[in-house]
Amino acid sequence: MHKLPKLTSRHVDRRNYPPGVAYMDGQYLPIQEAKLSILDYGFLHSDATYDVVHVWKGAFFRLGDHLDRFFRGMTELHMSIPYDKAEVADILHNCVALSGFKNAYVEFICTRGTSPNFSRDPRDAENRFVAFVIPFGSVANKEQMERGLHIAVTDVLRIPPSSVDPTVKNYHWLDMVKALYAAYELGADTAVLLDANGNVSEGPGFNIFAVKDGVVSTPDLGVLLGITRQTIFDLCAEMGIECHAQDIAVEDLKSADEVFVTSTAGGVMPVSQMDRQPIGGAREVGLLTKRMMALYWQIHEDDKYRNAISYPGSAE
Amino acid sequence: MHKLPKLTSRHVDRRNYPPGVAYMDGQYLPIQEAKLSILDYGFLHSDATYDVVHVWKGAFFRLGDHLDRFFRGMTELHMSIPYDKAEVADILHNCVALSGFKNAYVEFICTRGTSPNFSRDPRDAENRFVAFVIPFGSVANKEQMERGLHIAVTDVLRIPPSSVDPTVKNYHWLDMVKALYAAYELGADTAVLLDANGNVSEGPGFNIFAVKDGVVSTPDLGVLLGITRQTIFDLCAEMGIECHAQDIAVEDLKSADEVFVTSTAGGVMPVSQMDRQPIGGAREVGLLTKRMMALYWQIHEDDKYRNAISYPGSAE
Repeated sequence: MHKLPKLTSRHVDRRNYPPGVAYMDGQYLPIQEAKLSILDYGFLHSDATYDVVHVWKGAFFRLGDHLDRFFRGMTELHMSIPYDKAEVADILHNCVALSGFKNAYVEFICTRGTSPNFSRDPRDAENRFVAFVIPFGSVANKEQMERGLHIAVTDVLRIPPSSVDPTVKNYHWLDMVKALYAAYELGADTAVLLDANGNVSEGPGFNIFAVKDGVVSTPDLGVLLGITRQTIFDLCAEMGIECHAQDIAVEDLKSADEVFVTSTAGGVMPVSQMDRQPIGGAREVGLLTKRMMALYWQIHEDDKYRNAISYPGSAE
Repeated sequence: MHKLPKLTSRHVDRRNYPPGVAYMDGQYLPIQEAKLSILDYGFLHSDATYDVVHVWKGAFFRLGDHLDRFFRGMTELHMSIPYDKAEVADILHNCVALSGFKNAYVEFICTRGTSPNFSRDPRDAENRFVAFVIPFGSVANKEQMERGLHIAVTDVLRIPPSSVDPTVKNYHWLDMVKALYAAYELGADTAVLLDANGNVSEGPGFNIFAVKDGVVSTPDLGVLLGITRQTIFDLCAEMGIECHAQDIAVEDLKSADEVFVTSTAGGVMPVSQMDRQPIGGAREVGLLTKRMMALYWQIHEDDKYRNAISYPGSAE
């Protein structure tokens, strides 16, 4: 006779998590307590959309743009939550204030949720809103920010728009993860994936830009329309620099004078090697890239992009 | 001054879940207590593989095949867990025995997990094993099993193998969900997706088969290699029925004499309408389909496919 183990009444998770605060099911929680039912279709079918906004020096950056994209994504996926944009902004604000973080990574998510009878019909599900705040993080670490990222061009194709709309921010990352492991094999820090025509698309968590003869370009179709990507367009327009969203062949990326990547997680990040070859023949971060990096952080002071956090005990 | 809400020390989830038992982090739990950290990359990057085996009349069906596929998937994704196949089988057995369910849906999952510093490098993560048991469920409900499923052929392309390997069972379902909503718009019960060449691929949770002039066929590439699909091959071989894995054009599917779909969740399920047109010009479930349905349940009695559960208090 097989001896059966006993049921434990409540799950205990002994893993370590970064510090942070989350919101779900109407509750503000220490992040290690924020746990999603394993039956939620946001997990079991990756049926979810999300967005990430960052807080820098005590203020959200371009929060309105992130909220717009998030709400558009929910509409596209036939999802709804019982909060409007102002209410979501309030929840995110509270999470950050409770965390006390002056620089933070703020993710907010809508999952398909569950239906009590585990129906497979997504229309039967009650959608679920989750938000969390952890310390600000970056695609590139400190060393990589200084020396520039080393990127491998992999032959992994980014999931095409005919399957999944990349402009609805989603968690379908197995192509990204496959590309990452391929890049590690080649000694690179991260990867860029291709589109169905063999052109450059995007990488794990970032858009990619090439600079050639003073003109900036980034892939147009089949990529996330990143808010940091948009910020580059805005900065270029202000500075009178030509900037195009267009197809970029792998060879054009490799022969660029400068390459950089953009993400809410890290901002503008330099690339110094592509497939082990130095970008622009040099080993230093390019001048236009450096200028973009500086300007990107500078416009964080601009009131039109800022929403300040009221931290507890602060006079603000 | 903004009034801040208070932190709750522990998450309370008031939603209703189906009855069931789960295993995670070394604990056997009532299913409503089985909750995954929202920071797990199995959720945030859908970086996970899984399998589903069913229990019928107190025994697993083809458990070994499901375990083989699951362990192969983990290897492909560079994941590992501290259990071998026999130990996973033991955990699944215990979950079922604790649930008491004689007919059950048993899902087991390996997620990328987390790393304490929330590193974006998947190599830093500690992978996580989760399993759960809920009552047996089906892609087709009782009415649909009797009248046959009504399927819409959508123009949604299944995520191609050049992006994500469909033979590694995964949770990338947004293409499936999009196709489902398109099917509902057309008054159908479910959908079939196309491959990049415009041929038939698979649907949400099932493989699809066509029968024409006594010959059975199912798509070959870019689809999950379902265990129920394999069972059809096995049954056809035993019965001397020709069965091929090959490209199937949409027109060939529509002009088939019979169509059925297969899934661990439901077994062999008849299809009676495709894009509102009756399959084979008839309104009844086809004879070969009926025979396959009967045989499928019949071979559940075969010892070579069965692993019996030792329920507590039973003499077995």
